Amino acid sequence: MTDRKIYKPRPVSGFPEWLPQVRRVEQQWLDYIRKVFESYGYCSIETPAVEELNVIQAKGGDGGADVDKEVYVLERLHKEEGDKEARLALHFDQTVPLARYVAQHFNEMIFPFKRYQMQKVWRGERPQAGRFREFYQCDIDVINVDGLPLHFDAEMPAIIWEILSSLPGMENEKIQLRVSNRKILMGLLDGLNVTDKPAVMHFIDKAEKLGWDKTRHHLKADCGLGDKDIETIRSTVSSPRTRGSGEDSNAIPAFAGITILNAQMEEGLSELQFVMDQLKHLPKDAVVADLSIVRGLDYYTGTVYETVFTDDPGYGSICSGGRYDDLAGNYINKHLPGVGISIGFSRLFDRLRVQGKLPVGRVSPADVLVVLPAEERREEASRTAQALRSRGYNVELYHAPQKIKRQMEYASKKGIPYVWFPPFEDGKEHEIKDMMTGEQAKADPKEWTTK
Amino acid sequence: MTDRKIYKPRPVSGFPEWLPQVRRVEQQWLDYIRKVFESYGYCSIETPAVEELNVIQAKGGDGGADVDKEVYVLERLHKEEGDKEARLALHFDQTVPLARYVAQHFNEMIFPFKRYQMQKVWRGERPQAGRFREFYQCDIDVINVDGLPLHFDAEMPAIIWEILSSLPGMENEKIQLRVSNRKILMGLLDGLNVTDKPAVMHFIDKAEKLGWDKTRHHLKADCGLGDKDIETIRSTVSSPRTRGSGEDSNAIPAFAGITILNAQMEEGLSELQFVMDQLKHLPKDAVVADLSIVRGLDYYTGTVYETVFTDDPGYGSICSGGRYDDLAGNYINKHLPGVGISIGFSRLFDRLRVQGKLPVGRVSPADVLVVLPAEERREEASRTAQALRSRGYNVELYHAPQKIKRQMEYASKKGIPYVWFPPFEDGKEHEIKDMMTGEQAKADPKEWTTK
Repeated sequence: MTDRKIYKPRPVSGFPEWLPQVRRVEQQWLDYIRKVFESYGYCSIETPAVEELNVIQAKGGDGGADVDKEVYVLERLHKEEGDKEARLALHFDQTVPLARYVAQHFNEMIFPFKRYQMQKVWRGERPQAGRFREFYQCDIDVINVDGLPLHFDAEMPAIIWEILSSLPGMENEKIQLRVSNRKILMGLLDGLNVTDKPAVMHFIDKAEKLGWDKTRHHLKADCGLGDKDIETIRSTVSSPRTRGSGEDSNAIPAFAGITILNAQMEEGLSELQFVMDQLKHLPKDAVVADLSIVRGLDYYTGTVYETVFTDDPGYGSICSGGRYDDLAGNYINKHLPGVGISIGFSRLFDRLRVQGKLPVGRVSPADVLVVLPAEERREEASRTAQALRSRGYNVELYHAPQKIKRQMEYASKKGIPYVWFPPFEDGKEHEIKDMMTGEQAKADPKEWTTK
Repeated sequence: MTDRKIYKPRPVSGFPEWLPQVRRVEQQWLDYIRKVFESYGYCSIETPAVEELNVIQAKGGDGGADVDKEVYVLERLHKEEGDKEARLALHFDQTVPLARYVAQHFNEMIFPFKRYQMQKVWRGERPQAGRFREFYQCDIDVINVDGLPLHFDAEMPAIIWEILSSLPGMENEKIQLRVSNRKILMGLLDGLNVTDKPAVMHFIDKAEKLGWDKTRHHLKADCGLGDKDIETIRSTVSSPRTRGSGEDSNAIPAFAGITILNAQMEEGLSELQFVMDQLKHLPKDAVVADLSIVRGLDYYTGTVYETVFTDDPGYGSICSGGRYDDLAGNYINKHLPGVGISIGFSRLFDRLRVQGKLPVGRVSPADVLVVLPAEERREEASRTAQALRSRGYNVELYHAPQKIKRQMEYASKKGIPYVWFPPFEDGKEHEIKDMMTGEQAKADPKEWTTK
């Protein structure tokens, strides 16, 4: 072996991978998210890892021009001369693929189309700590032709709350969904005759981080806004976050103290109030109206969502989305409004992993390790394992007739909760040991059950 | 809308995607495969979609030099000047990533390492009908340090048989696992003093397709073999396939009529016989010894597997693998023997899809569609849906108070098996309709169960 050239592998920055015990929890998370999505009738789709580069560039999707810089394009290592195929790029979100999918399969689809999608996406960011270049996103969207009831805007936070509050390891995390409506801010800025709305919205988006002193300065110096208008903006987007779930919103005047400048603003406020009213059944502070939510995206036109750790809002949104008027307008001449939300799975999962909050334990999926007492007892041991498997248990048969102590250590290292001893000679009985309690008792492979 | 430039999307050749009703079956397949893998104690890992190009090129993996041509490399669309990062490539199998993973995490792992991996892989083949450039593979491997009992070589076909014979839609397919041992053929060719073994093995591999007349010609003209040696090869690799599962192998002389030329050949035959003896409990003809199995791979050193549709062996192997002496020798100075097998998931799935054999039906995961009788009954309908969800059902609430007939048509189109009618006014009772039988009856959301 020693004369071989060894290419020692190293981790590739931004492309995480886990040991089996962490992957096991990741799989539990994915399973649970899928279960909740399906419980609301959302169907699964998967799209290829790639899209034509033209498709990706036709629509900015989540991040627009910014993301364009992060696109990975594919090339065959040994390309043939005269290769005329379209350029392919890895998808950087699941919204562009969804839009393309709906346009392409429009005639075979049933609307409203309620789908979830849980795949990896890729962004060629500069490598830096805590930033992934490959990560899971878990998206739900509902798309309809021409019109889509506002009730779906309330379904999204309800589903997300059900998920985020119950993922293994998330039970004690304080999270909050913050909801606003684009029309409020757009109406406000229209009403104030703001010309460079994107610039103003950029600073509003940063206000929580920068503080209002600095924000005020930027709005004045960089955007040319007057003191009075800045104060109107500040007081509007800073209205308290407390009108939310768990409260009788009728008892609280809806957005008291906000100066309504035009019909667009009024519509936004009324839509937001409608959504909040539907979410009263959720715990207090789980979902709040927050008029400072901007979302850096052109295509949101109504409701917008962000989700933060209440005790660490600076970590950024772990689950975002909103309503769009027209999903697939770049690909098909149909009016397809929708609303959707996306869990930034890998960022969320990795935060808890790093903080040691994941229930990481079992390395193996096996419930039972069947001991191999001696080589000549293998057939009996193998039959025992198969009997337990046929009853739904995950069972590993130890591979060699080594010392029993060593076999038990193996079970312990792999986190296998039960060790089964088939009879060491004919006529004797089976026994099982509970590795947690140390209890050992007689058992029958056809009848034994976990407590 | 009409003045926009529309970029009409089209399918990307070789990158399949499914409508929800097909994706649903795909998901069932993936779930079932995972369940069986875990029932034998194999743990899940996932590796990134990419590896460093150096890692991929250090080891040929499944296909060696041939596959190298099909590697997709990644490039950032807007690369910065002076970018010194290693070149990345999409993985084209799961064996190279496994080898790299084991080398990289060696000190944190527990051996024998039994893992499964179910991910997409990419091969930039020239586009042609029926060939995928993105496809799922489902692999299991067991790796140990220094030695690995031969019993694992028998565990692989047992697991694969359990899967392939029970996947939804596969119940009536006739499939056969064919097992051989590399040492037999290598010993034979050594014994005959064959110099260009790869060339000879290439033609043996093709013999079933070409027939023995043509094969004989090639072995003579292209490899310079004499008539007698060719006949020895032919008679050895053509020994009947019938010594297999479901039979008392003691009653059949093991590989009668084969001339054993050396110790290597004898060892191969004895290992193969051992593996077959362990598989007697499987149905007759499910697993057979077949000495013509070659596998086009340098790194297999013992047992080799292929799996074919018995009535269409020309479709090629849908599940292949074998034993290797040394998995990760290119990445770490350890002796790591292993045995593994890989289900060519997408090829198998797509064959059944094209033949109309998949149980494709339900578009939606919803078990129940709750009707929305009128807008003012929404809260009641919503509560009903939530009550059913909390009891484990997947439930869609219809989105608008449209005509009942239309709501029922929607359920029917989406394949939702039950339609629930919340009371149309206070004091009335809930009813549920079974869409298959047409039966309608009173029901309580807190108690109703599917039959």
